[in-house]
Amino acid sequence: MLFGKITGTVVSSRKDERLEGLKLLIVQQVDVAGKESGQYVVAADAVGAGMGEVVLFATGSSARQTALTENRPIDAVVMGIVDTWEIGGRTIYEKHGMEAVHA
Amino acid sequence: MLFGKITGTVVSSRKDERLEGLKLLIVQQVDVAGKESGQYVVAADAVGAGMGEVVLFATGSSARQTALTENRPIDAVVMGIVDTWEIGGRTIYEKHGMEAVHA
Amino acid sequence: MLFGKITGTVVSSRKDERLEGLKLLIVQQVDVAGKESGQYVVAADAVGAGMGEVVLFATGSSARQTALTENRPIDAVVMGIVDTWEIGGRTIYEKHGMEAVHA
Amino acid sequence: MLFGKITGTVVSSRKDERLEGLKLLIVQQVDVAGKESGQYVVAADAVGAGMGEVVLFATGSSARQTALTENRPIDAVVMGIVDTWEIGGRTIYEKHGMEAVHA
Amino acid sequence: MLFGKITGTVVSSRKDERLEGLKLLIVQQVDVAGKESGQYVVAADAVGAGMGEVVLFATGSSARQTALTENRPIDAVVMGIVDTWEIGGRTIYEKHGMEAVHA
Repeated sequence: MLFGKITGTVVSSRKDERLEGLKLLIVQQVDVAGKESGQYVVAADAVGAGMGEVVLFATGSSARQTALTENRPIDAVVMGIVDTWEIGGRTIYEKHGMEAVHA
Repeated sequence: MLFGKITGTVVSSRKDERLEGLKLLIVQQVDVAGKESGQYVVAADAVGAGMGEVVLFATGSSARQTALTENRPIDAVVMGIVDTWEIGGRTIYEKHGMEAVHA
Repeated sequence: MLFGKITGTVVSSRKDERLEGLKLLIVQQVDVAGKESGQYVVAADAVGAGMGEVVLFATGSSARQTALTENRPIDAVVMGIVDTWEIGGRTIYEKHGMEAVHA
Repeated sequence: MLFGKITGTVVSSRKDERLEGLKLLIVQQVDVAGKESGQYVVAADAVGAGMGEVVLFATGSSARQTALTENRPIDAVVMGIVDTWEIGGRTIYEKHGMEAVHA
Repeated sequence: MLFGKITGTVVSSRKDERLEGLKLLIVQQVDVAGKESGQYVVAADAVGAGMGEVVLFATGSSARQTALTENRPIDAVVMGIVDTWEIGGRTIYEKHGMEAVHA
């Protein structure tokens, strides 16, 4: 899994039927120091992530291992909201109550 | 998934039998700002995408999770036409009625 | 899938039993403009591709979705000979009768 | 598999139910000479790895092949603590009793 | 698949139970001209490869398609010893009786 930040949403009305009902999010990859990189992925939302939230996302066949994404043509899924991460005992990222605004 | 733009088509008459009946498209990868990158993929078409359309494509085993591509030697599929995407509330891409010409 | 050009062959006599009977080809990746890149892959041949032919190859689990490669430790397969591809209505590559010499 | 060093931990309270009960570790990739690279992955812990330990991790669908990670949306797993590795008969890395402190 | 050279071995005593009994090799990637690159992978040995031998390795789920690696958390496997490879009729690599010393 990698860290990402929810920065946008995608609307697709003409799509494969197995995509119906999924919310598609734009996720900017975040490095281990908490900095956004230029790389993005469009991922299905399995946890109700809000705009600006820092999340964990999984890719490949593992993205189909949630109840929402099973058997769907999905290669990336947001499956956890990050509360905090630490490196060497030091907190690198901590979620604050204010910073998440639901999309 | 990633954004891509349909830029071409591929004809292959001598091929594995499990590829029969699939339309193969050349998809140029598009970055999150809407700009085409130099990277391409040849993907099966699961949604009737037209030339110039901006789409979502999935890769790996997820590309086989549509009714059309199941059990086929396909590692990329176009499975959604993008209507619009937004970043931070700003519209980055919006499909216009005129810009898609079916191949 | 990506475009590739068949440039060589590999002989391996001591190998896992599930590799028996497969022809292994060296495939140079070809970009969308038809130019060979420096990247290669060793792929199983599912279509009887000849030396110099331009092909489509698939990677990952999708490489095991042909009758020949099923359940084998194969992560790349040549599964189509390219006749032609077009970008924006312009032919980028067209197979000529003379250019393929069977290996 | 690749070598990695356990450098941190991740807390996620709002997550897909299939992630429940897994410990999530930050793993910095280590090159073959034993040097940490800038690349990281968040991996599930299948072996009780401690902070600072050098480990083997697997990615992709293989990350779901442990008793702990089966059928979960996990694309990376720590599944071995490295005791030692050798290149050309020379020991590149050797675990010392003191260097691992359980997280 | 890619070419690789066996350059080392890994010992891991504390590991997931499904890794038991597998020999883990350090494989340096070899390019199509026969030159070692800086990239490595730790792979399970399915063919009894010796130190210095040039091999084929597969990655991803395909690495689990040998009798030895089935259902194990393995994302890379050595599944063939290379005797020779040719490009354009020219031999690029040929195994000599002397060059392999079993580890």
